[in-house]
Parts: sequence; C-alpha cells; structure tokens
Amino acid sequence: LQRVDLLLVGFGHVGRRFASLLEESREPLAALGIGPRVVGIVTRRHGAKFVSAGLDAASAARIVTDGGVIGSAPTPSALELIARWRPDAAAARVLVETTPLDVRSGEPAVSHIRAAFAAGADVVTANKGPIACAYRTLSDEAARTGRQLRFEGAVMDGIPIFNLVREAMPAATIAGFRGVVNSTTNFLIDAMERGEPFDDALARMQAAGVAEADPALDVDGWDAAAKVAAMANVWFDARITPSDVVRESVTAATGERARAARAAGRRLKVVAQARRVVPRERSESRESAVEAAVRLEELPADDPLAILDGQANALEIDSWPLGRVVITQRDGGLEKTAYALLSDLVNVVSR
Amino acid sequence: LQRVDLLLVGFGHVGRRFASLLEESREPLAALGIGPRVVGIVTRRHGAKFVSAGLDAASAARIVTDGGVIGSAPTPSALELIARWRPDAAAARVLVETTPLDVRSGEPAVSHIRAAFAAGADVVTANKGPIACAYRTLSDEAARTGRQLRFEGAVMDGIPIFNLVREAMPAATIAGFRGVVNSTTNFLIDAMERGEPFDDALARMQAAGVAEADPALDVDGWDAAAKVAAMANVWFDARITPSDVVRESVTAATGERARAARAAGRRLKVVAQARRVVPRERSESRESAVEAAVRLEELPADDPLAILDGQANALEIDSWPLGRVVITQRDGGLEKTAYALLSDLVNVVSR
Repeated sequence: LQRVDLLLVGFGHVGRRFASLLEESREPLAALGIGPRVVGIVTRRHGAKFVSAGLDAASAARIVTDGGVIGSAPTPSALELIARWRPDAAAARVLVETTPLDVRSGEPAVSHIRAAFAAGADVVTANKGPIACAYRTLSDEAARTGRQLRFEGAVMDGIPIFNLVREAMPAATIAGFRGVVNSTTNFLIDAMERGEPFDDALARMQAAGVAEADPALDVDGWDAAAKVAAMANVWFDARITPSDVVRESVTAATGERARAARAAGRRLKVVAQARRVVPRERSESRESAVEAAVRLEELPADDPLAILDGQANALEIDSWPLGRVVITQRDGGLEKTAYALLSDLVNVVSR
Repeated sequence: LQRVDLLLVGFGHVGRRFASLLEESREPLAALGIGPRVVGIVTRRHGAKFVSAGLDAASAARIVTDGGVIGSAPTPSALELIARWRPDAAAARVLVETTPLDVRSGEPAVSHIRAAFAAGADVVTANKGPIACAYRTLSDEAARTGRQLRFEGAVMDGIPIFNLVREAMPAATIAGFRGVVNSTTNFLIDAMERGEPFDDALARMQAAGVAEADPALDVDGWDAAAKVAAMANVWFDARITPSDVVRESVTAATGERARAARAAGRRLKVVAQARRVVPRERSESRESAVEAAVRLEELPADDPLAILDGQANALEIDSWPLGRVVITQRDGGLEKTAYALLSDLVNVVSR
C-alpha cells in the first residue's frame, strides 16, 4: 500500500465531504494500492491542526460543522504549515486545496499551490481560481519542480472533462467548447420561465445554498467566465483570465426573454463558450487567439444544452476527428466535486 | 520516436480510414513520441501483404477501394502472418483488428487476438465480437502474456467510454448503464415516426451503408445486444454473450408506437441497458448477477437519450459517487471509429 499524506487547506462543504468520502472509499482505494492519511487541516475560521502521524478528519469535520475550533492557538497559516511540511521517504504528499474562489487573482490558492511545489508536494484542487488566473505559471512551475497539479473538480462539479481530454482524446485537436456550467443562473432562468420573479428565485437559491453569497459571481457571469478561462487556458494555452471573457448578466428582464423562447419551442440558456480563432503559432497578439464568452442564447429544444434543468450541467467539446462530444452531469452537487478530488488523488499517486 | 509496427487485419471502411488517419496524424503522433509504420495488411477478398520494412498503406487502400488485389498469390491467412511476425527490439508491435462482427462466436477476431498475444504483440480492435463473446478469456490471456488489449471503437463509434471509466472514474462503482447505441434502428424509428414505411426506410439505410447487410443484426437487436454484452463484461465482469441479452425487435408495427409516443410528447427509442443486480461476490449463479436488455422504451422529451437523431448516439452511466453521467456523440460515423483505434494505439504504446 502506497501511503499518501494529505494536507487539507480549505475545509468548507467540499473539503469536509472529501474527508468523509476518503473514509467511505478506503476499500476501493486500497484495491488501487493507495492508503491515504490526513495529516493536516487548515480552516478559515475554525483553526488549524497538523499531526504528522495522521489525524481524525471525520471528527474534525464534525467539530467544524458544529461551529467549534480544531487545534490550539496560535493558529498557523496555511503557508506556514505547507512550508514546514517535511518530505517523508515512506509517503507521497498531496495538498488538497479547496479555499474559496477569487476571480481576480486566484489567491490564496495560487500561493498555496506554489508553496506546495516548493515543499516537494503534489496538488489537487477544486478551486477554479488558480486555473482561470495563473494556469500557465503554475504548470510551468509544476514541470520545473517535477510536481503534479490536478483540478478535475474545478470546473464541472466532478464531470471528468480534463481527464476525458487528456486520457481519451490523444492526438485530437479541440476547436472549441460550449456548455451550461453555472447552476444558479440555470435555476434562475427556469424559475423565471415558470413566472417566478427574479428576486424571489434568487433568494430561494441563496437559502438553498446553491447561489454564491455574492450574487454577482453567478448572475453577472463571473463564475462561468472563470470556468471558460480555466478550460481555454488548459486546452488552448490561451493565457487569459476571467476578465478577458465577454459576459452577459441574467437580470429580471431575462425572464421575459426566457418565456418568449419557451413559447417558440426553444429554451434560453447561459452558454459558456470559447473557440480557437487563429492557431497560436500564427497569432501575433494573444488576445486574437481565442474568443471566449458567457452569453444568453436561445437553443432548439433538442439541443443537449437545452434539456438541462436544476443542477444538471453539460459541456460540448468540438474536436477533430471526434466531432461534437457532449458530456452531461445529470446529478450535480458537492459530493461530485469531492469525488473529483479523490479521482485526482488516485491519478496523481498512480503516475 | 518510439517506432510502432502495425499489422492491419481487416481492411474494410474502418481499416482503410484508419490507414489514412494514421498519415494525417503523423505530426500529433510524433509530438507524443510515436512513429507508426504499417508492415502488413490482410483483407478478406483483396489479398494480403507483409513487408517488414514497412509498406504504403494509403496506396493499398486505393487499390482495394478500386477492387484490386494487394500482394501476390498464394495469399497467406491472417493467422499465418501473425504467427510469423517476429519480435523486433527496435519496435513495438500492434495488431489492428477490424474484421466483421460475428455475434455468436466473436470469430475470427478472437483467434487473431490470441495469436497476437502468443506472438508477443499488443492488440487494438474495433470489433465488438471478441469483447461481447470472450472478454474474460482474452483479458486473462493478456494478463498472462503481459500484453495489452484495447477496444475503444468496438461499442460507441469512437465515443471514449472505456477510457472514461478506466481513467476518469477510479474507485467509483458502476451500478448500470443505458444508451442509444444502434444508428440503424434510431434512423428507422425516426423515419417511421415521420410516416415513412418500414421497408422503404430500411432499404434507404442499406443503400446509404448505415444498415448492416444482414438487417437482423440491426432490427432484431443483435448489434445492440453485442454492445451491451461487451460493456457488461468489461465493467461488471458479467461473463455473458449477446445471446444472454433480452432483445426486442423493431418492426413495421413499431411505427405506430413511435407516432403515438410523439403525439404524447414522448419519443420511442431502442434503449440498450444493463444493471448489476447482485454484487458478484454474493451471487451464486452468474446469470443472476446482471440484467441486460435491448428494449423499446418511451422516453420523456427531455431525456438525454430522447433527443438523439440520425447518427447521434449516447450512453448514460450510473455510478457512485458521480451519479448519472451521459456521454453523447452528436456526429457519428466510421471516421470516429478509426480515431478510436488511433487513440487506443497511443494508449497502448504510452503504457
């Protein structure tokens, strides 16, 4: 059994579900030769703890859920803990990064990832910020330090899009992609289509924990833009940030458009998309190489993106020679994101 | 550059498209460190040729397309050529198997694959027969001889379902799957839904080269049953053959059902499906472990399988913890199957 020591930085819903999923998956992981052990947890408001012999992450999750504090004062920062994390000949070390998104800078995740590489640890993350804002720098740094960075949960709630392209589409060329990638706006448009007012629907989504606390992240397209930037950076070497993605907001007025589309047998959707415009080698400025946008579009009723409701999301990848392949997640949710971290962990350790 | 010698057994539409795709993909393959070279071709009715220094597969494809014969008499059999294929320290050797489907026995592909393993070569195939009829035997033999067997193009026209599950869903458990996997019956039902008679529609599909020469393979569900058996064998260790899959035929009478479904806002589809019933370790007889069927089903209009028309096909995989993930190919066709062989080749050589 390959021992793998894990340092969890960020311990919100996804981080805590990852900790319990790790327990539930002990048997299949052992069958793959992997014996994970959580050695450290850093939370935002509930303290931090590091025990090099391993700690009980499930208990820590319960303490945090109940509003308690783990570890004793003074609380070390994530960067301090990562820097102090010593290599162990008997164990692989993986940082599990799940801090909240910052669409402008990708921080603090970017710094955590760089610190992990410097300390000789690999990284799996469900935070789209670093991939959307600094992918090129981070992948260069990973190559230079011989470390791995995986981020399957960052964009599509655990739908394995990055593994699909990397492992199952070798020697193929991706021309573009389009998807429904933000649950809140998808819920909102559905609700307005049925006649519910914008403010009521948004409040309901926030109460249910679907919408971000700052609604602009969802309704102004920032979350979707970060996802588009992440995919364009990884697949097109686009070197863009979320600010480079054209955005269109969902507002109270969107309801009327949605109802009109429905009446005409079509569906209004927020479509996140990017397309290679000029092959990179022939483009002079990096801006002209990729067209990236988050736009409201009326889709035919039998479009694979038109049929999605609730937490379902989907991505259509247009490639040569495979044509248009769509991957759809019918049951979204944070358990899937937690699983994406687990699958990244397996892939990091197996390589 | 890793030199890879290829022996093409079967040189129909898919095999010939593979040969030209190999040429078109020389650059991306080189970027992956792979330098393929066709050393042998075996056709059913157009002779065979083996040149250990490499031969011109594109020319051979043109000769065969024009009805000519490659190589000189007497024509060696595929088994003879495989048995005579000597290991080469400087090159990996891969058999590319694309002979036609036999749903009862999986032959001659099964024998070709075993001969390749015995000769020390790896195998990629687009023939579902061996996977549907003899997967367990062949994978045991691959393990025993230290060889690899890949078959991404066997089931879903190049949609990367096997790679998806193997590479992107580690430590997950598949409970079942359902899909629209046969283009001919999907076309047929669509045509009858629009009022076209069964015989006319079938004749049109045969003329277009979509339907199999023996229509029973399509309309009586044998092709779909072979695909179900292949997936159940790989994912559930079901050890079934196509005969173990319950089948329902598409007939002239299906048209009325399709029109009635449409009138009720639903779509009639041939749904190929299997589900784990009892975990293998707890089941006494192998028959009770898996329920596998090809059935006509009325689906809600927003079901991801209901929206498929023409050559589109799709598979929904129900797993823990990922839930229901659907992968859809909107642009089917034999070029995609040829690409699946190419992607298998890359994966075989890279491991």
